[in-house]
Amino acid sequence: MLSEFSLIDRFFASRARANTRRAALGIGDDCALIAPPVGEMLAISTDMLVEGRHFLPDVDPNALGHKTLAVNLSDLAAMGAAPLGFTLAFSLPKPREDWLAAFSAGLFELADRFGCELIGGDTTAGPLNLCVTVFGSVPQDAALRRDAAQPGDDIWVSGTPGDARAGLGVLRGEWQTHVADAAVFRRALERPEPRIALGLALRGVARAALDVSDGLAGDLLHILERSNVGARIDVDALPRSAALARLPLAVQRQCSLAGGDDYELCFTATPGARDAVEAAAQHAGVPVTRIGTITSLDPADPARAKPGIAWHDGTGAPLNLTLQGFDHFHAD
Amino acid sequence: MLSEFSLIDRFFASRARANTRRAALGIGDDCALIAPPVGEMLAISTDMLVEGRHFLPDVDPNALGHKTLAVNLSDLAAMGAAPLGFTLAFSLPKPREDWLAAFSAGLFELADRFGCELIGGDTTAGPLNLCVTVFGSVPQDAALRRDAAQPGDDIWVSGTPGDARAGLGVLRGEWQTHVADAAVFRRALERPEPRIALGLALRGVARAALDVSDGLAGDLLHILERSNVGARIDVDALPRSAALARLPLAVQRQCSLAGGDDYELCFTATPGARDAVEAAAQHAGVPVTRIGTITSLDPADPARAKPGIAWHDGTGAPLNLTLQGFDHFHAD
Repeated sequence: MLSEFSLIDRFFASRARANTRRAALGIGDDCALIAPPVGEMLAISTDMLVEGRHFLPDVDPNALGHKTLAVNLSDLAAMGAAPLGFTLAFSLPKPREDWLAAFSAGLFELADRFGCELIGGDTTAGPLNLCVTVFGSVPQDAALRRDAAQPGDDIWVSGTPGDARAGLGVLRGEWQTHVADAAVFRRALERPEPRIALGLALRGVARAALDVSDGLAGDLLHILERSNVGARIDVDALPRSAALARLPLAVQRQCSLAGGDDYELCFTATPGARDAVEAAAQHAGVPVTRIGTITSLDPADPARAKPGIAWHDGTGAPLNLTLQGFDHFHAD
Repeated sequence: MLSEFSLIDRFFASRARANTRRAALGIGDDCALIAPPVGEMLAISTDMLVEGRHFLPDVDPNALGHKTLAVNLSDLAAMGAAPLGFTLAFSLPKPREDWLAAFSAGLFELADRFGCELIGGDTTAGPLNLCVTVFGSVPQDAALRRDAAQPGDDIWVSGTPGDARAGLGVLRGEWQTHVADAAVFRRALERPEPRIALGLALRGVARAALDVSDGLAGDLLHILERSNVGARIDVDALPRSAALARLPLAVQRQCSLAGGDDYELCFTATPGARDAVEAAAQHAGVPVTRIGTITSLDPADPARAKPGIAWHDGTGAPLNLTLQGFDHFHAD
């Protein structure tokens, strides 16, 4: 296998060995050595992507390289952390030069754009599996945590969630759309843009935040549970791309609320911070939309005793939504 | 899948959420937040274990849990780093309660022994794949690097390398041995002991170091190449367990020199540090053996122009060894 794995050295290790800007020691030793800037914490997240579950076998390898790192950078964004570096461990059945060239090009294009250096890794033969652990830095008291939402906070979302799920639906033949819209959806699905600049701009502005990987409804619930609060969401306020708005309303809602893989940020902030939030969004070049309010729990009211979401429409009328959870590419 | 994956929450996430000793923020947010002690670096290593390549499908899951973390802790040991925490990402075909209970028990028994906390992770459905990223801390100038060997250094090895490979040979039917020896070999293969205490004791004593995962001959070459030096090894000086010494001499040498999965440390130190090395080993409770010397390269001598190993026997006579590289569990 050694001659085949020298391909991996060519596309990854040789590149990582040159990375000595952030890491005191990178690939080639037993460990990489890094340190966060003085006074800051290291923010760490790990994500594993498996063929057939997180991506289709015929996915464009350049897009896969992008997405493998993007989903991890998105976790840093949701924390308000600045990217430092990452490790990449992967197993693949048989190294193919064209595949590795395209995968590594997509990966490093994104890594370079965010100054995020490959500092270590592992490669082995096996069913295709990609595991990135990413490292960023953030001052401890500036970190955007999930447990910091408070009653009265506005709830915001970046971008236009739902496009990635719409793209999956097109790939699966669940619905049709014309070619230009299909391209918008597919790009959202294959090349999510980690909202690093927005996360950094929201330090000291937002209270709680996370990135939407498994659908807005399910992910927002993580904030509610960790913060022990409820939420009231105006479903008509949800931002939709022009392409998504051309699909049937039920599909729009399904995609916006329960569609995953968008990697937009969902965050809360006090109403007094609205101008600051808008300024942060403008600075980051990412649109943000206010979609609801954090509410307090009421043990005396069964409907509000536990963390949960009350949906309503633009007129304030309650909506009873049945949302199907996002299941990535798997059918079970 | 959610109900099945609640098993994972039970065995892993709930436990990690309680880990707030070292991490300011653990599992349950987008990122974990940690920092090395003031003035130290974070040492980071990642290893991916794949069924059929790194372990057999019928492996004892408790032993697999131990080994999954042990191979990563071993990288910290080789760096002279103190364990802090780890992330665990894994895919598995179908969560089974008994398997997960045994796997997590083996994993956490070792983690607790070294005060190494689970701080994050990811789980997904897919072919069995285990990816750990481990974090330790070490003062930058105390790190045991691979590129620090110098001509004249002694070459040392801990423990009795070869037992793990002997165990694999017994499992594969390559050779037979009696039951007691087979148990020694199998334990070496399935429950390698990361040499953390030795690595820490060798700070300021050893120069270069690494852990032997792919066979002494191949791994030592990494030190030689990174340090741009050669080595002279006395094959008869290699420490062998009593069990290994009962196998044929050719098998002993194959196991000692080219056998992987032992996770012993191989390191260099000046001859003036011999007493200090012995004291460090005694302090750590791990035997160490001097097996050779680092030599300088000689561009004028084709045999010594490039980093490489000159083998000789106890009388000083050169040996011409043909070593088969270690291939874990794979046959190609």
